[in-house]
Amino acid sequence: MDNAYPSKLLEKAVGEFSKLPGIGRKTALRLVLNMLRRSEEEVEEFAGAVSRLRKDVKYCRVCHNISDTDVCPICSDTHRDASTICVVENIRDVMAVENTQQYGGLYHVLGGIISPMDGIGPADIEIDSLVKRVADGGVREVILALSSTMEGDTTNFYISRKLAPYDVELSVIARGISVGDELEYTDEVTLGRAIINRTKMTGK
Amino acid sequence: MDNAYPSKLLEKAVGEFSKLPGIGRKTALRLVLNMLRRSEEEVEEFAGAVSRLRKDVKYCRVCHNISDTDVCPICSDTHRDASTICVVENIRDVMAVENTQQYGGLYHVLGGIISPMDGIGPADIEIDSLVKRVADGGVREVILALSSTMEGDTTNFYISRKLAPYDVELSVIARGISVGDELEYTDEVTLGRAIINRTKMTGK
Repeated sequence: MDNAYPSKLLEKAVGEFSKLPGIGRKTALRLVLNMLRRSEEEVEEFAGAVSRLRKDVKYCRVCHNISDTDVCPICSDTHRDASTICVVENIRDVMAVENTQQYGGLYHVLGGIISPMDGIGPADIEIDSLVKRVADGGVREVILALSSTMEGDTTNFYISRKLAPYDVELSVIARGISVGDELEYTDEVTLGRAIINRTKMTGK
Repeated sequence: MDNAYPSKLLEKAVGEFSKLPGIGRKTALRLVLNMLRRSEEEVEEFAGAVSRLRKDVKYCRVCHNISDTDVCPICSDTHRDASTICVVENIRDVMAVENTQQYGGLYHVLGGIISPMDGIGPADIEIDSLVKRVADGGVREVILALSSTMEGDTTNFYISRKLAPYDVELSVIARGISVGDELEYTDEVTLGRAIINRTKMTGK
């Protein structure tokens, strides 16, 4: 189904949709035909939402999270603990941590992760601004909540070196077997780390 | 991940994407964040293509296929056999048949299929205009190329009744085992039909 589009307008719209990650030309055609079945107002609503988002979106000047305002609601919430900063790769991670309802501090969104393979170095992500936040004082702990990959570990290491001169506690989120995972199906690296990083049982 | 969007603009765009078929909120967020990484021009290109398609799209007044012109390129192609009409459900089917490069006639796009369960009756799809095309003369054969489902069979039957008064040959595309299918995995209905509709081997 790669040729023979009966309309240039259709072909163009399918082409645009198939630029999205994980959307091939067949799926794109299905999505576009779904659009065609909607009212003109609904389609304008869709196109407008996408266009407005790109044009008007802001990034919090403190933590670099997406925001409608100059400083995001999390950073400006005085009920949150401003002395703790959780460092994450992207805004999806902020949402994931927020959804746990286990964290009451602030965030710092790196906007990426150090990855020499992809040509992303320390200067390409928001590390300097993190160091500045710490240097400005008032920060007691920085929690590194990056993916448990080589890139994540590299970034953790780089940040820990950069923050070494400052009087701030550094921690990394726990790695271990997932809740609900069966031991026999856990990979040996994870299991090994889980044994090394065992925690004392309380209540004994 | 159903709450805690850091931005209303983001939430709105995710909401719009998740209205698309087969796109949940997690996938929608991934697509929207991908949009955010593109340039403003690229995003305008995307939004514009969708909006223009819906506003400016035409349907061929002969066969009802999507078209940029009043009469689509297939219907206006004088090299094609105008005496044969292949009846299909939607434009994706036109593209599928075109891609076989085995058909040189014209099409008629019903825009749906008779389905009492979904409240779609004969009047909701382009059957009357098909009958009119046949009544106007010049059509030698009508090929019914609908899905091999109950709805497809119902529609085939309805059309055959409607075209009965006219001097036109009616045929249905062959049903049988797919090329490359193994016999033991073919369902019994398909296999039964394939035996009943067996074709003479040529070259003997």
